[in-house]
Formats: sequence, C-alpha cells, structure tokens
Amino acid sequence: MQYQTIKNILLNSQNFDAQKIILKGWVTSNRGNKKIRFISLNDGSTVESLQIVLKDHKDIIFDFELLDKIHLGAAINVEGILYYTPEGKQTIELEASKIDLLKDTDSDYPIQKQEINLETLREIPHLRHRTNVLRAVFLIRSTLAFEIHKYFQAHNFMYFNAPIITSNDGEGAGETFFVNDGNSKNPFFGTNKATLGVTGQLHGESYATGFNKIYTFAPTFRAEHSNTKKHAAEFWMIEPEVAFYDLKDAINLADDLLKTVIKNTIEKHPQEFKYLVENVDANLLEKLNNFINTKLAIIDYRDAIQKLAEVKDIFEEKNIHFGLDLGTEHERYISEKLFNGPVAVINFPKEFKAFYMYQNDDNETVAAFDLLVPGIGELIGGSQREARYDKLLNRINEVGINQEDLQWYLDLRRFGDSGSAGFGIGFERLVMYVTGVDNIRDVIPYPRTSGNIKM
Amino acid sequence: MQYQTIKNILLNSQNFDAQKIILKGWVTSNRGNKKIRFISLNDGSTVESLQIVLKDHKDIIFDFELLDKIHLGAAINVEGILYYTPEGKQTIELEASKIDLLKDTDSDYPIQKQEINLETLREIPHLRHRTNVLRAVFLIRSTLAFEIHKYFQAHNFMYFNAPIITSNDGEGAGETFFVNDGNSKNPFFGTNKATLGVTGQLHGESYATGFNKIYTFAPTFRAEHSNTKKHAAEFWMIEPEVAFYDLKDAINLADDLLKTVIKNTIEKHPQEFKYLVENVDANLLEKLNNFINTKLAIIDYRDAIQKLAEVKDIFEEKNIHFGLDLGTEHERYISEKLFNGPVAVINFPKEFKAFYMYQNDDNETVAAFDLLVPGIGELIGGSQREARYDKLLNRINEVGINQEDLQWYLDLRRFGDSGSAGFGIGFERLVMYVTGVDNIRDVIPYPRTSGNIKM
Repeated sequence: MQYQTIKNILLNSQNFDAQKIILKGWVTSNRGNKKIRFISLNDGSTVESLQIVLKDHKDIIFDFELLDKIHLGAAINVEGILYYTPEGKQTIELEASKIDLLKDTDSDYPIQKQEINLETLREIPHLRHRTNVLRAVFLIRSTLAFEIHKYFQAHNFMYFNAPIITSNDGEGAGETFFVNDGNSKNPFFGTNKATLGVTGQLHGESYATGFNKIYTFAPTFRAEHSNTKKHAAEFWMIEPEVAFYDLKDAINLADDLLKTVIKNTIEKHPQEFKYLVENVDANLLEKLNNFINTKLAIIDYRDAIQKLAEVKDIFEEKNIHFGLDLGTEHERYISEKLFNGPVAVINFPKEFKAFYMYQNDDNETVAAFDLLVPGIGELIGGSQREARYDKLLNRINEVGINQEDLQWYLDLRRFGDSGSAGFGIGFERLVMYVTGVDNIRDVIPYPRTSGNIKM
Repeated sequence: MQYQTIKNILLNSQNFDAQKIILKGWVTSNRGNKKIRFISLNDGSTVESLQIVLKDHKDIIFDFELLDKIHLGAAINVEGILYYTPEGKQTIELEASKIDLLKDTDSDYPIQKQEINLETLREIPHLRHRTNVLRAVFLIRSTLAFEIHKYFQAHNFMYFNAPIITSNDGEGAGETFFVNDGNSKNPFFGTNKATLGVTGQLHGESYATGFNKIYTFAPTFRAEHSNTKKHAAEFWMIEPEVAFYDLKDAINLADDLLKTVIKNTIEKHPQEFKYLVENVDANLLEKLNNFINTKLAIIDYRDAIQKLAEVKDIFEEKNIHFGLDLGTEHERYISEKLFNGPVAVINFPKEFKAFYMYQNDDNETVAAFDLLVPGIGELIGGSQREARYDKLLNRINEVGINQEDLQWYLDLRRFGDSGSAGFGIGFERLVMYVTGVDNIRDVIPYPRTSGNIKM
C-alpha cells in the first residue's frame, strides 16, 4: 500500500474520510499520557502537520512507555483510519492502528520547537528546513521555479544553458571568481582567466538570434563583499532574451511573467501563505494581490530624479541630480511612496549601466529598465541591446573592454542580429518578495556569502 | 498584429489556410529569378523552415534586385497570406505581400549551408545553432529539461538547489575545481578549500530528510582531463533523492522517469525527430520506442561478471573477475548484446563505489546501480544510502576522508534520517541518447573541456 501525502489529504479531505491510509514522516510534537497520545507528523509535502491519535481499542494495543520516548524529528511510519470532522477542533485526524519508529533523534537534535529565530537557524543549514517557516519558504521556492519554467515553455521560449565557467566578463564589472584545477603552470583550460559567469546574457543573445525566444535559469556568482540582506556570492538568476523585442516589450514580458507566476504560486500554497501571513508578514497576501492586480507604472529616470529632488532632504544622499545611481533609499521611495506598488524606471544615464545597452538618441541615456518593488527595491534589471555594430564597438572602447575578447559578441551584429531585449531576475530576491522573508540567507538552502561556506 | 511561429502553424495548418499572418526569422535559403523568388525562413520554433513566395501581383510590387541580395542568415519580417495545400509539393507556403530586411549578414557569415560537419561547427559555438542539426538538438534539450521538471513536480518532488561552491568533496574522488577571488592571503570564503561541487547529493539527502522527495537540476563540474566523447568539465545533472526509498524503489523511479520524459519529448517534436532520423541516426525512433516499451532488465554485478567471463576474449580488458570496475566495452556488451536494451546492474563491489552507499550483508558489495543503455553505456548511477551511523563512519575512516568535514552529513543519521535512495542523471548523456548525437560537445551550447573555454 502506497503512502499518502498530507498535502493531498488536505486537498481532498472528504474523499479520505474513514479511509485507511499510511503516512511516513517526521514527528513535530508528541504529547499525552499513558492512555492516549497525540503525535503530530510532518511529511514535507506542506507546512501543516497532521495529528495522529494513539489509543488502545479492540485488539490494538500500544506500548505507551515507548511512544512517550519518541523524540521530535524522529522518522515514523503510521497506519490508521483518517477522520474528516469539519466541525471539530482538528479538521482531520488519523486514528492509528500501527506505528513504527523508523529512526529516532539523539537528544542533541537542535530543532526542539518549531519557532527558532532565523539567525540561529543559519548555523545549521542541514537541519533548519525542518521548521515551519523554512518549510514554507522552500516549498514556495520550488513552485516558483517550476511556474517560471512553465510560463516560458508555454510562451515558446527555449531553455538555454549558458556556460557557467567562462573567459568573458559579461558586465565588465570585475568582482568575478576565478576557477582553477590547482595546476597553475598548466591550467586546465589553458588560461588563468577562467571565471564563474556573472550573467548568461551575452551567450543568451547568441541563441536568441536563431531561436528568437530563450531563457536561462542557472546559478550566478559575484565575489562581492557586500554584507547586506540582499546580496549573496552565489544566487540563481533567470534571464530571458527575445529577438525583435524593444524596451517596452521586455517590460511587458517582465510584468506578465511576475504576475502569472506569483498568482499561480499563491493558488498552489494555501497552507504556506496562511502560515507566512500569521507568522512572518501580516500584509503579505495583500501586497502580492495588489501587485497582481495593479498595472505596472513606468517612469522615466529624468522624471524620477525630479520627483526625488522635491523631497531630497529625507534622503541620506541628498545630491539628487541627473547621473545619480539610485540607492536603495531612492528606489524604495519611488515604489513605496510615489507609486505604492511596482514601477519600472526607464532610460538611465549610460555611465552606470552596462556597455551592451541600446543607446538612446539623446546620447546620454540607454534603453534600460529597473523594476522596483516595495520592500525590496530592484527585483529585475533589463534593457534593449545595442544591435548597431559601430555604436556597440565605440562603447566597448569607451569603457575599456578588450575588443578581441568580445569580437564574437560584436560579430552577432554582423550576422543577422537585428536587436533583442531581455532582463535578469534575481531568483532569491523574488522568493524574498513572495514569502516576505527579508534576508537572502533564509531563502537559499546553503547560502554563500563573504566568509561563509558552511558544508 | 502579433507574429506567428512556424511550429504553431505546422500544428494547426488547416486553421491558418488563407489567413493573413506575420513571421519574423532568419533566411535559410534564397533562390529564384527576377520575376519570382522563394525565400525560406526559420524562426527557431522548429527545425522546419517555411517557404515564402514573392511575386508581383495587383498593387504589390517587389524590388527583385534587392531581394536577390538578401543573404543567408539575414533577419527578415514578412507579411502575407498562408496557403495550406496538403496535396501540393509544399504543404504550406506563404504568399508575401510585404518583406522587410531587418538585418543582413556580412559575406563572411560562416553558415552557408545547413549541413556542415559538427567538428567544424564547434569552432563557432555562438553561431552553430543556426544549422538544422543543432536546432533539432537544442529544441529537444529544452523540452527534455522541462519534461523532467514536470515529472518531478507532478510526483510531489521539491526542486532543491544544492550549493555550487562547497567546502565538501562529495564523491571523495578529487578532480575538483577550486574557486578564489584572486586574493590568496585573505580568501573570499575564508578558506582555500572552496571548490565547485561534483554532486548535490549529500546536501540533497539533508533536504530529503524533512521534505521526503527532492530533486536537483544544476550544473556540475569535474576537472577531468578525459578527452572522450562522453566527458565534459561542465555538465548538468539531475539528482533525485527520496527518503524511505530502497535500491529497487530508486531503480523503478529512474525507469519510469526516463520512459515518461522520452515519450513526452518525442510527442512534442515530430519535425525534429523526423530530421534526426533522416540525417543523424536512422534507427533513433526505433531505439527510443524500444526503450519506452521494454521492461527494464536488472542483473546482479556477480551474474554480469560471469556472463562477461564467458566471452572474455572479445574484450581489451580480459581479466574479468569480481572487483573489476566495468569499462565502456563491458557495459556496452551487457546492454547491447546480453539484453539489447536498457539494463540496471546492481550490487557492485564497495571498493570502486562511493563511501555513502548502503553496505550489503555480504560485506563485499553495496546497494548501488548503474543504468546502462545501448550506444552510451552508463546513463544513470545511483544507490541506496548508508543510514547506519557506525557503518557510515567506518567507511569514511576506511577510505580516508576527514570525519570532521562530514560530521554534518553523519549527523543526519542521528537526527531522523531513516534511509533514502537516489541517483544522478548526466543530462547531456540523456540528450545524446535521445537525439542520437554521439559527442557531448554537440549537445551543450558552449562546451567546456580540457583546454577549451571558447567565449
């Protein structure tokens, strides 16, 4: 007999009423006396645990001495009859006829209650997912990832795997990790310039020219020492790239993608969002539904600067002028105060944007956008790409990148690349936004930051 | 007006008959004279190009001088009426009313015909996907990846992202890449032992204990100098891990997963498989359908050794004995000659398998399996894991791994890990098997091998 999942039981409680079922999972509470015990079991399919009632009846006799000693976190196998009593205190409950202790926990098992602060839990990344809050986060993370794949596949995007180890520096930004096999005289790749990719976009553009619509979904690396709640050295990124798209098309794609995947994820996780609303952020669902139902606002960078200048005294950085690279305080003001919702800021000064962006006619700005959301700041950055060979080459020279390294990329413009647009979503930032959890270390299983490489 | 995809048109040809449509894509052939031209366009949605007919009629006048000069690979936009003539030479054809040259190609564009040998194409990884064979390969690769996600999500598996940069050496095999930020005195992670992961399994086990069913799908790295058709330094791997599963359960999962995703992928790509059968491997579909419809054979390693010993003279390695690590010649004999189909070899000598595998009662073998397929050899390797703390610790000491490094992994066994099983699929090997393409360099966009890190 196959074992059931609690998620499935919750979805179809009535059908399971009075049915015999088997469950396997881990103990989340164990209380009672020598005549009756209540053991809660979580099987990882949902944040909710299911209550198991153990009492003697007919020819079923339990060893209550032994049941009393089952520790939190122990793996058990249970058989019994499920009862659905919507009017009762416990809507569903399993009356056990049999219980097997598959593996107990030693007494130093650190998850002794479901609520431990997230900072403490970071010390035990191999165990912390056995608390409710991280169960909810990682179940939602998995669904978000799948919904993103589903969205792109349904819209004819090809899943493209850019190389991770590369000899290009995509953003021209430095801050890359180097890769070697310990042999510096005769390096594995024949070069000491092998690095971990900071973006799959440049390679993605080569495939958009030919496949039209592509997307990546892959780990990305930055050797940034920023010790903030939003930065990690290793994170996952989603980067769609579409031939024939311009800036507006890319913004519309980002907006529709986010709304669709957030909506579908909420629908699939009633228990997890209930938990997060009750324990992490009371306004979470209100915020997300507001996002889903609000038309994305768009504001030109120049207009944003004007609006910020009007209230410049509230900022730490008060020198608001054309050319300012917006800080988180400015970004949050724009999305939280000016628009109270998601907003795309467009047409940034070319100075602080990457070399590959489409150069606007004003000669000062590029066709880029940052999608800002309340609470997080930048969630997405994207642009239309510069498809004019001469303009791209000029910019490469201006910013001091070695032309030879990027000749293949320039050559795309000589070989039928009539322009494309795309963007990058930091996947962990999206998970933070959707779960309300405010530290990137708590939304990726084994976080890597400066000085931290646990396990 | 939105532009159509050729894939969608092929799926619904009748509905498009006599309809006005727009197409965007790249020219794959251009022939004709000054009165009529036939331009084939590929838009990346399928390996098939669509023929566009350009001739003057009514008030539509074309500049045939200009049309004549459109090069292969040029990006064009076309409007016209689609005609569906199932009895005609061209089943579907677009009679153009308008054509725009969006971007031409320079005369050194290297894809001047659709059939170029694969080895030559490896020199231009940024352009080679604009040939039919690589179009077919990468469209199938994308669908295979999505079908794998779909299978796991439908079966309640959580998508788990193991860390890529790690301080563990998962297989205890060496051959890892090291990661640094160029600062050897004060390394980014506070250690010079930061490496690129060779497996996500150990971390995966920690999440299977709690979530029950998890899978990874991520890039993996080996600093192996093997210059074979099957090895790359960077490849993608899928690693499911399921709590409460034993060896047989894992084999059944592997079998069902492969059959399901291959079947669904074939159904989604009639054009691409037609192309591959006609141009790469005439027996491809027969082989795959045979796989889908045949019950997976299982043979004990001891029995396999006996069978191999009976014909030992046909092998280069003739010393067939218990303890032999099977070579590709032996693996292929087993799957191609003994079974003529996929086969799982089980219960290998512990000496050449990883330390974490379940130790069988005979004290000589471990509960491991290799899934062998004709033409490739090993496609999947997996095992039941050793959940008994003392036995695992003994093995860790025996093979000389530092206990301290793996104490967190050992601790899982003290904290409710009652056993699990899982396996790893080399994604590129699966793509090779499914497409019939026999070199790993041709199934990953930008291959990384010893000495090769193009772009």
